[in-house]
Amino acid sequence: MRLGIDVGGTTVKIGLIEDKKIIKSFAIPTKKETLFRDIYEAVKDVKDIEFIGFGLPGTVKDNYIVNLPNIGIKDVDINVEFKKYFPNVNILSTNDANAAALGESIAAAKFKSTYFITLGTGVGGGYVYNNSLVNGSHSCAGEVGHGFIDPIHNFQCTCGLKGCLETVSSATGVVRLARTYKDKFKSNIDFDKISCQMVFDCAKQGDELGLFVVDTMANYLGIALANIAVCCDVDAFIIGGGVMAAGDFLLNKIKDSFKQHAHYGVRDIEIYKASLGNQAGMLGAAYLDE
Amino acid sequence: MRLGIDVGGTTVKIGLIEDKKIIKSFAIPTKKETLFRDIYEAVKDVKDIEFIGFGLPGTVKDNYIVNLPNIGIKDVDINVEFKKYFPNVNILSTNDANAAALGESIAAAKFKSTYFITLGTGVGGGYVYNNSLVNGSHSCAGEVGHGFIDPIHNFQCTCGLKGCLETVSSATGVVRLARTYKDKFKSNIDFDKISCQMVFDCAKQGDELGLFVVDTMANYLGIALANIAVCCDVDAFIIGGGVMAAGDFLLNKIKDSFKQHAHYGVRDIEIYKASLGNQAGMLGAAYLDE
Repeated sequence: MRLGIDVGGTTVKIGLIEDKKIIKSFAIPTKKETLFRDIYEAVKDVKDIEFIGFGLPGTVKDNYIVNLPNIGIKDVDINVEFKKYFPNVNILSTNDANAAALGESIAAAKFKSTYFITLGTGVGGGYVYNNSLVNGSHSCAGEVGHGFIDPIHNFQCTCGLKGCLETVSSATGVVRLARTYKDKFKSNIDFDKISCQMVFDCAKQGDELGLFVVDTMANYLGIALANIAVCCDVDAFIIGGGVMAAGDFLLNKIKDSFKQHAHYGVRDIEIYKASLGNQAGMLGAAYLDE
Repeated sequence: MRLGIDVGGTTVKIGLIEDKKIIKSFAIPTKKETLFRDIYEAVKDVKDIEFIGFGLPGTVKDNYIVNLPNIGIKDVDINVEFKKYFPNVNILSTNDANAAALGESIAAAKFKSTYFITLGTGVGGGYVYNNSLVNGSHSCAGEVGHGFIDPIHNFQCTCGLKGCLETVSSATGVVRLARTYKDKFKSNIDFDKISCQMVFDCAKQGDELGLFVVDTMANYLGIALANIAVCCDVDAFIIGGGVMAAGDFLLNKIKDSFKQHAHYGVRDIEIYKASLGNQAGMLGAAYLDE
């Protein structure tokens, strides 16, 4: 039995996994003070655990948690705080986007190498090469949300840089673009209650500003995918995250931009919507050793 | 003994290689009609050949040559045309930039994962992950010269796209930039005899236009490296090709731009000048099976 543990800001999702299938899953509340003891209490009766993997919402390297800003945990060594409960079990960890990337890659079984992009508050990602997660030299492979894509607006990013993909193609980027072009287009968007979803909903109904914003953010995503494609030439792209609730309306615009910007050699790389939703992190975490 | 064969437009460089060292190397002229027979004649007396690898100047996939435009060879199957001479030897092939990437990676032995960029007439590259070359799903990993980088000039590229890295950061890109900004800066560049080297030579002497051009092409390169860094987070970048004859003058400008544009997590990735010159292709080709 494998355990895939997806730690979120409010709940910890725990999956019991066999043969790449989630047999059972449940959630416990995320408590900063007792996180690892709570997880242990929740799984201590599981028999024959052969591997435990963690997906964590922040920076983690070699089982050392540098920072989980949404939980308020810093500088914690999983090999000290959790390994003691399971001294004979292999335990590995990565960030949540990477865990989801591996989970989605397992679900897309016909592909050996995939690049996963998650569009949420920010833009995250993960690179799976030959069925294994690429962490990279600084555990930063997949951080394509902080690639430079937009010298036109050159918006300030939370990371300290300007012009990052995340500044235009995330949920916050969508709202930012809408506010920026507010006076340039007719629109039914209610700027007192604006949300990413509202912009998409208006765009779907033909709202001029909404359409411009969605076209713009999708255009940048297509360019980013085109650049990833010539960098590591994967079998497929998988796009997930809350913003993808917009469905084919968004996916088709991303595909159009990709085809327009991608080198002819990689232009037929398929782009899929992620299929596992919030199960992906558990599944991927459970196979971090492969 | 391993054979690493680097096929160029005018000569074929053949290396006899043991323990990651070139024991002996020699060159024969490249003749379109008799290429593979000539290579066979040149190496037929070598004893105990355990592997033969080819680096080829064009598009090759699974030992099938799609196109070598500078030689005029198209649609040739190495498994048919060359394998017959060595039916019991494993033979693999890749493009010349990939072969050089693997060769330079072998020379930079302390790094397991590297990204190689070669700045010549165009911009090529190759990605080595865990000491193995990444070919990619369409044999296009490393084709970062055709990533979209420049919406400002948006120059037409030979590949059919616009705004590719190659349009600004190659030898031809340098000349193109100099011509574009000819009337905006004072300059000693002789536009009747202009070459990439002349632009660099003038820049080194403080020529205003020359400096602007070199700063601009190096800035784009730094951005491209920053984007590759968050995509696959390698241990080091290695920059080669004829344009790198400009040495530290260029390398330092690339490093400055990289530090300015790279995500904080990957900012300390080292950038090195390639060390093997035109030996890299032979060395790398000889280890395509690893």
